[in-house]
Amino acid sequence: MRKALLDAKGVLAIPLTPFRESDESIDYGVLEKEIEFINRSDVKGICTPMISSEFMTLSESEREEMIRVPFRLAREDYIKVANVAACNINTALRYLEAGEKAGADAVISTPPYCGDLDANGISHYFGAIAEHTSLPVVIQNVGLPNTAQTPAQLLRLCESYPNIRWVKEEVVPPPLSIERLNSLRTDALEGIMSGYGGFYNLMDFANGAVGTIQACEFSDVTQRIWDLMYQGNERAARELHYLTLPMVQMELLYGPAFAKDMLVRRGIFKNRITRNKRAEISRAAVREFDRIWDLMEPLIENEGSAVRPAGREAMSAHRVAPRSAGKELYDAEGTF
Amino acid sequence: MRKALLDAKGVLAIPLTPFRESDESIDYGVLEKEIEFINRSDVKGICTPMISSEFMTLSESEREEMIRVPFRLAREDYIKVANVAACNINTALRYLEAGEKAGADAVISTPPYCGDLDANGISHYFGAIAEHTSLPVVIQNVGLPNTAQTPAQLLRLCESYPNIRWVKEEVVPPPLSIERLNSLRTDALEGIMSGYGGFYNLMDFANGAVGTIQACEFSDVTQRIWDLMYQGNERAARELHYLTLPMVQMELLYGPAFAKDMLVRRGIFKNRITRNKRAEISRAAVREFDRIWDLMEPLIENEGSAVRPAGREAMSAHRVAPRSAGKELYDAEGTF
Amino acid sequence: MRKALLDAKGVLAIPLTPFRESDESIDYGVLEKEIEFINRSDVKGICTPMISSEFMTLSESEREEMIRVPFRLAREDYIKVANVAACNINTALRYLEAGEKAGADAVISTPPYCGDLDANGISHYFGAIAEHTSLPVVIQNVGLPNTAQTPAQLLRLCESYPNIRWVKEEVVPPPLSIERLNSLRTDALEGIMSGYGGFYNLMDFANGAVGTIQACEFSDVTQRIWDLMYQGNERAARELHYLTLPMVQMELLYGPAFAKDMLVRRGIFKNRITRNKRAEISRAAVREFDRIWDLMEPLIENEGSAVRPAGREAMSAHRVAPRSAGKELYDAEGTF
Amino acid sequence: MRKALLDAKGVLAIPLTPFRESDESIDYGVLEKEIEFINRSDVKGICTPMISSEFMTLSESEREEMIRVPFRLAREDYIKVANVAACNINTALRYLEAGEKAGADAVISTPPYCGDLDANGISHYFGAIAEHTSLPVVIQNVGLPNTAQTPAQLLRLCESYPNIRWVKEEVVPPPLSIERLNSLRTDALEGIMSGYGGFYNLMDFANGAVGTIQACEFSDVTQRIWDLMYQGNERAARELHYLTLPMVQMELLYGPAFAKDMLVRRGIFKNRITRNKRAEISRAAVREFDRIWDLMEPLIENEGSAVRPAGREAMSAHRVAPRSAGKELYDAEGTF
Repeated sequence: MRKALLDAKGVLAIPLTPFRESDESIDYGVLEKEIEFINRSDVKGICTPMISSEFMTLSESEREEMIRVPFRLAREDYIKVANVAACNINTALRYLEAGEKAGADAVISTPPYCGDLDANGISHYFGAIAEHTSLPVVIQNVGLPNTAQTPAQLLRLCESYPNIRWVKEEVVPPPLSIERLNSLRTDALEGIMSGYGGFYNLMDFANGAVGTIQACEFSDVTQRIWDLMYQGNERAARELHYLTLPMVQMELLYGPAFAKDMLVRRGIFKNRITRNKRAEISRAAVREFDRIWDLMEPLIENEGSAVRPAGREAMSAHRVAPRSAGKELYDAEGTF
Repeated sequence: MRKALLDAKGVLAIPLTPFRESDESIDYGVLEKEIEFINRSDVKGICTPMISSEFMTLSESEREEMIRVPFRLAREDYIKVANVAACNINTALRYLEAGEKAGADAVISTPPYCGDLDANGISHYFGAIAEHTSLPVVIQNVGLPNTAQTPAQLLRLCESYPNIRWVKEEVVPPPLSIERLNSLRTDALEGIMSGYGGFYNLMDFANGAVGTIQACEFSDVTQRIWDLMYQGNERAARELHYLTLPMVQMELLYGPAFAKDMLVRRGIFKNRITRNKRAEISRAAVREFDRIWDLMEPLIENEGSAVRPAGREAMSAHRVAPRSAGKELYDAEGTF
Repeated sequence: MRKALLDAKGVLAIPLTPFRESDESIDYGVLEKEIEFINRSDVKGICTPMISSEFMTLSESEREEMIRVPFRLAREDYIKVANVAACNINTALRYLEAGEKAGADAVISTPPYCGDLDANGISHYFGAIAEHTSLPVVIQNVGLPNTAQTPAQLLRLCESYPNIRWVKEEVVPPPLSIERLNSLRTDALEGIMSGYGGFYNLMDFANGAVGTIQACEFSDVTQRIWDLMYQGNERAARELHYLTLPMVQMELLYGPAFAKDMLVRRGIFKNRITRNKRAEISRAAVREFDRIWDLMEPLIENEGSAVRPAGREAMSAHRVAPRSAGKELYDAEGTF
Repeated sequence: MRKALLDAKGVLAIPLTPFRESDESIDYGVLEKEIEFINRSDVKGICTPMISSEFMTLSESEREEMIRVPFRLAREDYIKVANVAACNINTALRYLEAGEKAGADAVISTPPYCGDLDANGISHYFGAIAEHTSLPVVIQNVGLPNTAQTPAQLLRLCESYPNIRWVKEEVVPPPLSIERLNSLRTDALEGIMSGYGGFYNLMDFANGAVGTIQACEFSDVTQRIWDLMYQGNERAARELHYLTLPMVQMELLYGPAFAKDMLVRRGIFKNRITRNKRAEISRAAVREFDRIWDLMEPLIENEGSAVRPAGREAMSAHRVAPRSAGKELYDAEGTF
């Protein structure tokens, strides 16, 4: 039975895409462990493959696998959202079909994310998706070149197609964009989801977001923040949210490489390899990651015994950039 | 036998991708006519599928077809360059294989054109392509976000891999970018190709470009400009080049929709449908296209009897935007 | 008596700001010659100081002088428009006062062009200008960061203040922006002016522009194009317009440095020095300027005997970049 | 006696520019209170007027006053840095003279921040400043269009002029830019300062920054973070730094309006009026500011009795945006 997006009161977790070091192919063994990890995280659902999954760097068949495999392994009670974003309508419809077959409860898409496009093209694209499915469609509104939509444009799409009725709003600065969209919304917009790593959980909730869609490495913690907000316990929500800010800062700086690093420490991933973005993580950055881990580890609850956090040691054998020419500030104990 | 890029003394023509009105699928019948048209244009070769071919909006199988079909149909003496640009290495290698099987003389690629990337990722990407082929590799340097390379970065790639030795340089402003690259070039850079619709043919040639890669709708005319330049007849080259400027202006404003419109008038295409960019062409713009056609038609030579220009009438039944609210400046005869 | 912008049927000429080589101060002797030159050009008026005047690099007192001096010297029958654009309201009002005292017929302004701003700030800014003057206000709509206005925003300003009723529209691509604004215009918008060096004179006119505001180096020629269009002689207008395209191409590539180079050849300026943009003009570019001059010189009419074109020789003693490392393509006669 | 930038081990505080509600003129009475507040903050010095001071919206005379007044009132032992950034050299030299007369220990500048410029123009500009003073020159490297400099360009300027030897590095993402610059630095670069509101204090210090230049509203707290880092007490520094992150988040979202709001609560400012950026602060945002204040107030130490924090009530009579259409999430007690 189709599950409702209105019940996504917290986190839809995004799986990172695990790559093998040898040939950058997807490591399905690790992916399986990752979905099991998301299952244990007690979030509201799964949304895949998204920017944090490096979806733009996946081939078409990889795109489909990153829908099929996670949906097959995910908990039955999880809401499942398939990302069908493509650069042409026919490919989007192919992903839509894959999503529907795999049991999607909803689909999400940005406007066509490469090549020229215009407002008419965006309408045409979302219209084609909407007309080919009965699933609810979520517009992901991000600041890719030429694709950021104004609230008026978003609402026009919602008014035009009955099943286009959600927006994942993260045009920078995200909380102001959500506030603006929320203040202008009509009944045609059923709900708003936030993103941006959960950097603004409290403001997002205050501005009307139902939940947030984020990379999974600490989505168990973020879900607790949203639970507390829904319980009306702002103080506790705020305290927990504030504790996560240094972590989200690093995710926003280092992207999937950071998220994968944390998943290595949590015992899920084997490496932090990403496609196309390959700058070495500096020694100083790794030290910073260590400290983020020290900060986050105590916040982890309910971790089953089978997969206990591997912690700081897990990264010890990991490739580290050569010592920079700058002065070395940390001694062996990690103090200045 | 492999043909040398150094012989591309003029135009490598880019086929536009013809789409069916019904479902936006590729119209292979029209594509066949288009390649025959390019064969008659007496240019130096073919380069496919490029930005003018809307390559970013093609599916992976369409990408391969847009290499295979044109290469199979193109004149034997034409130099054949396959665009292998992709957003991940493995897909680029797949296009590379398709290109090699289809008889490519060289391959071309931008850096990965969507998703995050960094300088290390760009090196890694071009390195992988270079190592998987013995064909010469052309770096296409355009101003996509994060991907524009400095001359130093381009030359470093050329120095690092023996078969990376060409650059198609069109970072805005293109003639200044070509001039700069040319002034800093080393022996590792065998040649430079220009682009940008041939808007700067004379400057490109003066700044060391061997030829230009451009959409095919008037590449027969552009080839004559380059022939004249190579013959040392600057005056005649310049005169012909200047006559084409109003046409290139329109191509830069309207992109593939303009090029396809001209190909309808030349009797090759059936429509000017493009993917994702779908703003109506206004009545005033169509009138402008008419005048461009009046300007270009007399420049067309050697057109075989089988495919005579269809001219202005060819577009007459074409969908035109509703009359704008602005005052109507043209009377029925197309004068003010 | 105040002259009406509706009579600006052709060119409002922008004076370039002449700088002394010694200390980059304004050379008022040259400025005087330049205004006399504009007076002889038989255009419709003068608009100063604009982007072509490098207004953003002028000090506040220089800004005022670049209004006062040109207005004092300009022909009485010329329409005079003062640019009051500033980064805060109080400074804009100071320029407004200078403009009014100097006899402005209208004022023009972009939104505040540096520092943070938002839509409310833009309204507040134009509102303050409108309320402090009875002169018509022209909104200059260009693509500076955060400042490009949609037609809806422009029209809202026009509806809100009775004397805000003109737009100089040049958001890229300019002819499409003008077309769009014209198609949506209401009675609150009295007129549209184009710009962009006159690159799209014919389309601008067709899309409803009353005239164009452009750097003065060949505005005598451009005025003739507009005269022909207003006389209904499209063919002749188009021919003359097309002849100017190679020149406008260079202006768009090299900006005020090109315009000043041409003014040296016309016997008005002593050098082509610009502030802040100081890359050497290459030997190849100077050769290209020579050819543009060869192309434009025959189009110049009515040039008084006192100031005859100085021509190619005028630039001969001029500083030229050292010979580039690239191969030398032109021989002494300027052929390949 | 001139004070050394190497002693700026912590914060150089930036005064916000207080504007009168009536006419947006500078309120010098408030400015005097603000400098006294900075004096009590026990930071290392003062840097004025910077982006947080809305310097780009100040007139030339206001620019000079925002150097003279703060320098005259600032503690004698404070390091004083004058911002001389301008859009032309002569105006920069005028600010330089004002700074020197007012007792500056160093000057800072971005490249010319409006109008066209190129690499030669940037060298020419900094060269002119360097040659007209014996003061150390700090290059502010931010991501204004066309102005972000690579480490190589920055170091070339440092190598070329003996007194250009500091960089305030905040090209996004700032900590990675500082790390990169630090790893490539030569002896010609004496020191690096960070900025960006102190969002990355720990990473900045680890990457070699001597101190940070930030808006003053909580620079007393930030100075304590740097003191702890210099004392080698990373744990305490990190704890205090983390406590400030929610506050810096708001400063990055709302800019000077937020900083001024906090200064109202600290009893210094009378309003949060900014120039050009005038969107209403929503009711929800003000509630968020309240909570930031609740978080920061306990961190304030050593506040003299004369100026005690005015707190949340100080803003109560303040203009608030009309209630949004969105659902009201907070009840009267400020819980959800």
